[in-house]
Amino acid sequence: MIDLVEIIEYVGTFAFAISGIRLAAKKDFDLFGAYVVGLVTAIGGGTIRDLCLGVPPFWMEDARYLICSGFALVFVVLFRKYLIHLNITFFLFDTIGLALFTVVGIEKTMAAGGYDYWVAIVMGGITGAAGGVFRDIFINEIPLIFRKEIYAIACLIGGLVYIACLDLGMGRMAVQLLSALSVALTRLVAVRYKIGLPHIKGEQD
Amino acid sequence: MIDLVEIIEYVGTFAFAISGIRLAAKKDFDLFGAYVVGLVTAIGGGTIRDLCLGVPPFWMEDARYLICSGFALVFVVLFRKYLIHLNITFFLFDTIGLALFTVVGIEKTMAAGGYDYWVAIVMGGITGAAGGVFRDIFINEIPLIFRKEIYAIACLIGGLVYIACLDLGMGRMAVQLLSALSVALTRLVAVRYKIGLPHIKGEQD
Amino acid sequence: MIDLVEIIEYVGTFAFAISGIRLAAKKDFDLFGAYVVGLVTAIGGGTIRDLCLGVPPFWMEDARYLICSGFALVFVVLFRKYLIHLNITFFLFDTIGLALFTVVGIEKTMAAGGYDYWVAIVMGGITGAAGGVFRDIFINEIPLIFRKEIYAIACLIGGLVYIACLDLGMGRMAVQLLSALSVALTRLVAVRYKIGLPHIKGEQD
Repeated sequence: MIDLVEIIEYVGTFAFAISGIRLAAKKDFDLFGAYVVGLVTAIGGGTIRDLCLGVPPFWMEDARYLICSGFALVFVVLFRKYLIHLNITFFLFDTIGLALFTVVGIEKTMAAGGYDYWVAIVMGGITGAAGGVFRDIFINEIPLIFRKEIYAIACLIGGLVYIACLDLGMGRMAVQLLSALSVALTRLVAVRYKIGLPHIKGEQD
Repeated sequence: MIDLVEIIEYVGTFAFAISGIRLAAKKDFDLFGAYVVGLVTAIGGGTIRDLCLGVPPFWMEDARYLICSGFALVFVVLFRKYLIHLNITFFLFDTIGLALFTVVGIEKTMAAGGYDYWVAIVMGGITGAAGGVFRDIFINEIPLIFRKEIYAIACLIGGLVYIACLDLGMGRMAVQLLSALSVALTRLVAVRYKIGLPHIKGEQD
Repeated sequence: MIDLVEIIEYVGTFAFAISGIRLAAKKDFDLFGAYVVGLVTAIGGGTIRDLCLGVPPFWMEDARYLICSGFALVFVVLFRKYLIHLNITFFLFDTIGLALFTVVGIEKTMAAGGYDYWVAIVMGGITGAAGGVFRDIFINEIPLIFRKEIYAIACLIGGLVYIACLDLGMGRMAVQLLSALSVALTRLVAVRYKIGLPHIKGEQD
């Protein structure tokens, strides 16, 4: 079972990095810049989480996150003309990654000890969504998740489901699975039916 | 007295969050994005301070900062058409918040121990002013405090007053009060008389 | 020998701050804003490194980095019309600073203990190059090092040379010198012969 989680984590890292590298490519980045944007998209959220929790950033203890982002760079360079046909695949990978990152963020916060449940939920959201904020700051755009898409909200719903299932006394694997599923389903339903949050209106509107 | 400080702290959080949410509204953010910008405006400075000091970010130990920012969002959504008439009120709240945040930043640094006075002054300035820098990066603008307004400078003056009063052997409450007052007064006078720092000239000018 | 390293470190800080202040001047920043941009360019990379390593940011223990950035501000204000004639001098100072910052970053990581070699190399690169990323985010531009110039790559090459020399059993001073030289030479050669990384191509190109 550990292997499966690990594989999903690298798939998520790969998918997150791809999203950063593709956006960097639109902005005329060089290979190094594209790699950094991809990497930060993948590991930025978890890094903020770990700094807040006072533990060493997770990627400093396992080179595979950097390697995974490197594979993503090679992949985009080699197959750039075909990527557009893989949009649905990437979307699914990205959603799986989001779901898993959220659960990892929640569990790491609870393992750190001493924090209320709501902190774990917030940290799940940061783990899943903050990387995309860094990505958009690096390419000098307003963060996408602040204007479009149910994304961070999906993480928060996953967090609530996690805590609810835990309170109901479910086993750990069931809690993880239901939480991850609720993240993924929220996002899939929102994108499929074009559901978004209302926008905040300006004072002149 | 503790209650009064707490109340001022939430008033400051509310006012800082309002400033972030109003700017997000101008940029067509959704409700979640506006909330995050408001929250980061309110807690961003203190978070940087706490990470530098090696202590857990303050908002992870008290949910009221997140709740306060939530109230700010509801307030902006409900009363958006009337906000413009409250500009002076918000300005006063914001200034009170700035003064208190500065004092909190100084005292937390001194409580952490082992740092020189100037570090406490810098941390007071970061606590008061860095949230606004995050806000402006998130809405993709050049940070306002780098181009207009005596803002961070007011924090630094408050820090100098704090250290001076402390050196003069004043009681803690007097030190706090004089420091906070000097922040607020500096800002009020600067805005009232449109006093700003000179701009740095380019090499062609 | 310690004195020489210290002097180079302040020269590097000065040169990095100058680069931030000059860019801020082009964007109509006030004196405070220009100072902050200069300071963050100089200390931003080392701050991220120290937060990741879980040690207090280096500038909190030595006021000279803030003072050095202040001198840089005074220098730009006084001599702005002549700066353009000093471009080659600044470039050399900047390159020396980059080389030294990289070595400092590597050694501080190895002194922290418990990290693999590749972490030290990455931290060398962050120490040298992340300040410029902050600078460009603050002036609301896409980070220069993501689109032009061999800069972070020079840090990484310096890191590889450091580890290689260490493995070969060289003395510490030789390792430091060869690593720093390889950073500086890589950058000098790249700029002299206009060598850059290939850009990543977009999906439509």
